[in-house]
Formats: sequence, C-alpha cells, structure tokens
Amino acid sequence: MLQTSIDIWTPLVRVRAASPLVHNITNYVVMNTTANALLAVGASPAMVHALEEAEQFAALSQALVINIGTLSPAWVEAMRRAALTAKRAAIPWVLDPVGAGATSYRTTTAAALIDLGPTVIRANASEIAALGGDPGGKGVDSTRTSGSALGAAKDLARTTGAIVAMTGAVDYVTDGARTVAIRNGDPLMARVTGLGCTATALVGAFLAGQDPFEATVAAIAVLGVAGEIAAIRSAGPGSLQLELLDALYTLDQATLTGRARVEWMDGAPA
Amino acid sequence: MLQTSIDIWTPLVRVRAASPLVHNITNYVVMNTTANALLAVGASPAMVHALEEAEQFAALSQALVINIGTLSPAWVEAMRRAALTAKRAAIPWVLDPVGAGATSYRTTTAAALIDLGPTVIRANASEIAALGGDPGGKGVDSTRTSGSALGAAKDLARTTGAIVAMTGAVDYVTDGARTVAIRNGDPLMARVTGLGCTATALVGAFLAGQDPFEATVAAIAVLGVAGEIAAIRSAGPGSLQLELLDALYTLDQATLTGRARVEWMDGAPA
Amino acid sequence: MLQTSIDIWTPLVRVRAASPLVHNITNYVVMNTTANALLAVGASPAMVHALEEAEQFAALSQALVINIGTLSPAWVEAMRRAALTAKRAAIPWVLDPVGAGATSYRTTTAAALIDLGPTVIRANASEIAALGGDPGGKGVDSTRTSGSALGAAKDLARTTGAIVAMTGAVDYVTDGARTVAIRNGDPLMARVTGLGCTATALVGAFLAGQDPFEATVAAIAVLGVAGEIAAIRSAGPGSLQLELLDALYTLDQATLTGRARVEWMDGAPA
Repeated sequence: MLQTSIDIWTPLVRVRAASPLVHNITNYVVMNTTANALLAVGASPAMVHALEEAEQFAALSQALVINIGTLSPAWVEAMRRAALTAKRAAIPWVLDPVGAGATSYRTTTAAALIDLGPTVIRANASEIAALGGDPGGKGVDSTRTSGSALGAAKDLARTTGAIVAMTGAVDYVTDGARTVAIRNGDPLMARVTGLGCTATALVGAFLAGQDPFEATVAAIAVLGVAGEIAAIRSAGPGSLQLELLDALYTLDQATLTGRARVEWMDGAPA
Repeated sequence: MLQTSIDIWTPLVRVRAASPLVHNITNYVVMNTTANALLAVGASPAMVHALEEAEQFAALSQALVINIGTLSPAWVEAMRRAALTAKRAAIPWVLDPVGAGATSYRTTTAAALIDLGPTVIRANASEIAALGGDPGGKGVDSTRTSGSALGAAKDLARTTGAIVAMTGAVDYVTDGARTVAIRNGDPLMARVTGLGCTATALVGAFLAGQDPFEATVAAIAVLGVAGEIAAIRSAGPGSLQLELLDALYTLDQATLTGRARVEWMDGAPA
Repeated sequence: MLQTSIDIWTPLVRVRAASPLVHNITNYVVMNTTANALLAVGASPAMVHALEEAEQFAALSQALVINIGTLSPAWVEAMRRAALTAKRAAIPWVLDPVGAGATSYRTTTAAALIDLGPTVIRANASEIAALGGDPGGKGVDSTRTSGSALGAAKDLARTTGAIVAMTGAVDYVTDGARTVAIRNGDPLMARVTGLGCTATALVGAFLAGQDPFEATVAAIAVLGVAGEIAAIRSAGPGSLQLELLDALYTLDQATLTGRARVEWMDGAPA
C-alpha cells in the first residue's frame, strides 16, 4: 500500500452528507446503472435531456454530467445548452467523450463540448488520443494502454484547462502540471458495460462543492477500490455489478484508505 | 401486524393468472427494471412509444402505464394519444408525474395528462404538492414527507377523480373519500433508482380487470412487502434489486398477509 | 444427453479470442443487458444509432445487430442505412423483428428490413407467423409454441434466404433445407425481460467471421446452456440475470458439450 497525501475519504463523506443533485445527460445504455452508482455513494441523480427543460434543470443542480455514448442532434443541443448554463452559474461539469475517434460525428461533438469548458474530461486512452488529433480508436473500448497516452492527457489538460481523468489498467488524473496515478480496480470491471461512464458520473457527484482535482482523484479511487472489493466477491461480471453497488454503499474509511493506491507522479505538494 | 379488511392477496393471484398485457410509455432509466418487475409479478410488459403505433398498441392492452421521467415532445404526444385511446376503450391507466415541480415543462405536461383522466396517479409527496400548485420539489427525489402532503393528495384525488397513490416512508392510497395507509418497505429502497416507477408499473398490472382502489392498495402493499423481504436479504442497493425481483416472484399468501401493514385512515367499510 | 455433430464449443472459443466489435441498433429496454451479455461472451459491443454515424460505424464493425423493440422513424432509417452498409461490406447482420404482428408499424418495418437481406432472423413463433402473413401475436411475448410454427420458419428461411432462429420452449435453427433443434434453457428465462434480444445479440457476436449456420446454432446453444445453469443457481428472475452473465463468462467446454441438447431435424450431414 502506497502512502498518499491526498485525502480521498473526506470527499466521499461530503457526498454522503450533502447528497448533491447531479444532472445527467447521458447514454441509454448506462442511465440505470449510473443512477444506481450515484445513489449508492449518496448523491441524488436525475436524467433530464429535453430542450424544453435542460437549462432550467441544469441551473438547479450541484453538478452536471455530459456523456455522448448514444448521441443524436437533439441530445447534443441539450448537452450544449446545459453546459452553457452550468458554465454561467459556475456549476462544475464533467464530460465523457464516449467513442471519440471512432466516428467523425463523435470526435466533432466531443471537441465542440470541450470548447464549452468542462471542469473535468473523463475518458480512456484511445478517446484522449483522438481528442489530441490521433484517430484510430476501436469503438467504445480502448485499444491503447493508458500509460502510453499520458503525454496526450497532459497536453489535453493544458490546452483545454480541464482536469483530465484517463482511466484504464492504471488511472491517471492530471491538470497538466499535477499528475496522480491510481492503481486500483480489477480487469473483470472491463467485462461490465459502462463502468467508465460510472467513473464519469461519480466524478460529477464528487465535484459538487469540492476542489475539482481532489474530488476527481477521490471519485476514481473510490470506484477502483469498490471495484476490486466487488471483484473478490464475484464469480463473473453479473455478480460484479451487484457487488460494486453494495461496495460503494458500504465503503468505510479503513477499507478505502487501506486499499487505495494513489501516487503523485508530477507536482506533488512540498 | 395490523389486521386489514382489504384483500391484497387475491389481486396478486389474479395478475399471476391473467398475465395482463401492460403497455408502458415510460422513461429510459427504468424500462428494463420495470419490465422485469412486471414479469416477476406475472404480467406481460411491452414498451411502445412511437406515434405510428402507440394508439394501436394501447387498444390491444389491458392496462397502460405513462411515466414522464425522461420526457420530450414526441414522447408526450404519444402519451397523450395512448391515454385518449385508453380512455375511449375503458382501459385503466396510471400516470407517474416524475419530477413535477422541478421544471415547468414537467409540471405543465403532468397537468395536461391529468386532464385526460388517469385511473390512478402514483407520485411522491413533492410531486403531489407541485400538482396542487405548491412548487419546490428537488429533482426526482422527494423533499417532503408523505404524511405532511396527505391533505394535498386527497385534494388532488377529489379535483381530478383519480385515485392518488402517494409513496414515501409511509404510502397512502386515497380517492378523496377513502384513504388507506401502507407501512411497509425499507429505507434502502430509496437507494435503488426507479422503485417509485416500479410501484407505478405494478399498479398498472393490478388495475387490469380489477377494482381500481383495491388493486392500487394491493400493488403498493405487494411492492412494500417484497421490498422489506429483499432488504433483509441484502448487503446494499445492488443486492436489493436482485432480491426484490426474486421476492416479487416467490411471494406467497402467508408472507404477504403476515407482513402487510395496511390500515384504513378514512372511509373504512362499516 | 444427445450426441451432436455440430461443434458448438469452437465458435465460442473464437468469439472469446477475436473479441469482435458488434454494432447494435437495438431497443432501450435491453441496451444495457445485451451489452453485458456480449461482454460476458468476450465480444466488444457498441450501441450507435444516430443517422450522422450509423453507416460509418457499421463499416468498422465485424457484425451488426438490428432490433426493432422500441422503434421510431429516425431509428428505423438508421437501421436501414446500417443494414445497407453491412450488406455492401459483406458484414453479417442479424434482425430481431420484436413484436412483428402486434402493430402494423412493426410488421411493415420488419418486412422492409428483411428485404435488405439479413444473414439471420431471430424471432419467436408469433413473430415468425406474422412475418409469414399470419397475424395475431400478443405484444412482444409469444402466444404460439415454437413447434407449431416450424413450417413457417422454414418457409421464411426459403423465401428470404436468411437463416431463421426461432426460439421458445424448444429452439430451432433452419435455413429451409437444414434444421437443428436445441432443447436447452429453462422456463424461468421467460420471466427476465429481453432474453430473446440477448439471443439475437449473441448470434451477432458469433456471426463475425464464422459460418453463419454453425454460429447461430452455437450462439443459441450457449445461451440455453448458460440459462439452465443460471436457473439452477437462482431463486427467481432477479438472481437469474446475474447468474446468466456469470455462466456465460465462465462456461467451459465440458459443461457446454455435456449439457447441450442439439439435434439434427433435417439435412444432417452424411
């Protein structure tokens, strides 16, 4: 177990205490599972996408999650309006550019949303490479290892001003100057659909009223630790889904800090 | 255990025997989970929303469930047409005004659907308060206790002619003159997304060919009892989902009547 | 246990090794669960429906799954374009004509998609009867036994040139000349929504780069065997969902070949 100077427990305590209202405009595949993950960590999720109400609802929320997994023009317009509303109201928001690089529509849409200034971009290595101008992703599953794309992640953070959370076998959180590696999780998690989207949703919940860099590290670490506890208790990807929600719900300080492998790469505080 | 003069077992037996076709126009988040709950109690669910077929399908069904959780204009129009078809054909239908009060679009849409004469309105206390003209709900999770809004629920029932099922820590079913309280369920149920929507869907299944007031009470009690059995067997919200479906499927008369806490508040038969 | 001359193990080994990218344009109810079933057998699922990208994505994929469960005009147009792309690029595709016969919109849409030449049609007996001109289905759940509709399935295969997989208490795979019966599965599977759609999705994964007839038989047998293993371990439909994914993920050669009841009806090789 590596020591860490980043407090990952207090952000979870705050989510549980504040139960932030998290507005999600996300994909059809994961609406149910990310809502359940948000409830399991104590947040209050809502899925609202109509143009008639996206802005009004965004203004009520403590955080916004935008995920382009099953995008179409009306949904993208709702994402754009909600993101603008969040920006104006200083509500933090996180973007999940699902499948950027796989089709030009996804790459273009993701780039346009990034121009609206997300607080955090959560993506896999292929998507981050594509957003940096290097196409070649395979659908929604990453074909690159996250380590090889770390330079691209730092570049994306510097260019956009967003914190970038790149998840994979090792997860990285970087703002271009500071970088943290998180070595939790389990390979079985890749056999459950949408756990990357769950990471994004949890980042959204943690962003509400908290320091964005620390909140992002904590959210990713919480999911990784819960995922590895769930994997121990699971016979396959079906049980993993159930056990993951139970682990998020019951996670205690000793387990989280005992298992978390969070490590400064760059810019550690003196 | 309180005695009850309301038979909640026979309505479940009838659903299992008749396997009513339940037409759902519902939200993306719960389509899978409410279909599974309907199957678990023995109903035959279908999700059909296209304008090209909503009326034709509504006319084939034994009950209709309308839930505005992830509404948009084309879906609302399909809801309107299906509700009109149901009304003309004397097919019972239940409305779930998800998030009424949170945005004006939701409040307006819910009000317009109520004008079409639902057999039952199933909602939480915040939504019912909003439908009675008192805004201030927080997204889709209720910020009010159901007890404090009971007057509003009775008023809504009297004004609309619908039976109102208001769920919360205590559930109430009222037609304005008669009121029943149901004290089942478990707080862990609030950590699973869409169990309010599941209540609505089960009410739909029970309405098919049965007395609407008794059917609504029975549906709410069945879900509450199954939920508390599931909570006993669960380590968290992940296992609760699984256990709830198993409990709905295996529920027997002794367990249901032994655990149900159904109590007349107003209008008990002499 | 019946002996079979059809190798159902090697196709599963190939899916696990190749991890084919399977493009799904499917219904809202099952997007999550079919993605998880595809991941559990080792495939790489993606859900992509926008007109702006359906063709580009179809061309990248190793197989295409089209399921009309919650159809609407824009989705149908995306299905049409993706199917045309697949046909031109010789990418195999499978059609699930959910609810054909229940509404004229479904019957017409299914017929128009069949005109585009699916490699496989996976349906229940009511849907196959309707596609052959015999209406009278009840929603999405079959009201016919699959045995009585076997003639219609063979006719459909002959008329369309597609392999027809008709699932029910007994499953049949036929190309009009050759017919195989598969006697696996468990009645509890009918209490979980969308397992027919899961059959379709798995057929899609197995079609990638494999002989279509053998791939279809193998996919149906794999699901049936996994389903009956899951049913043994389940207390109800909630646990069945979880156990099914675990069983798909862990299925080994001895279990699959020991349990599979695959039998030639017509056209067995000499």
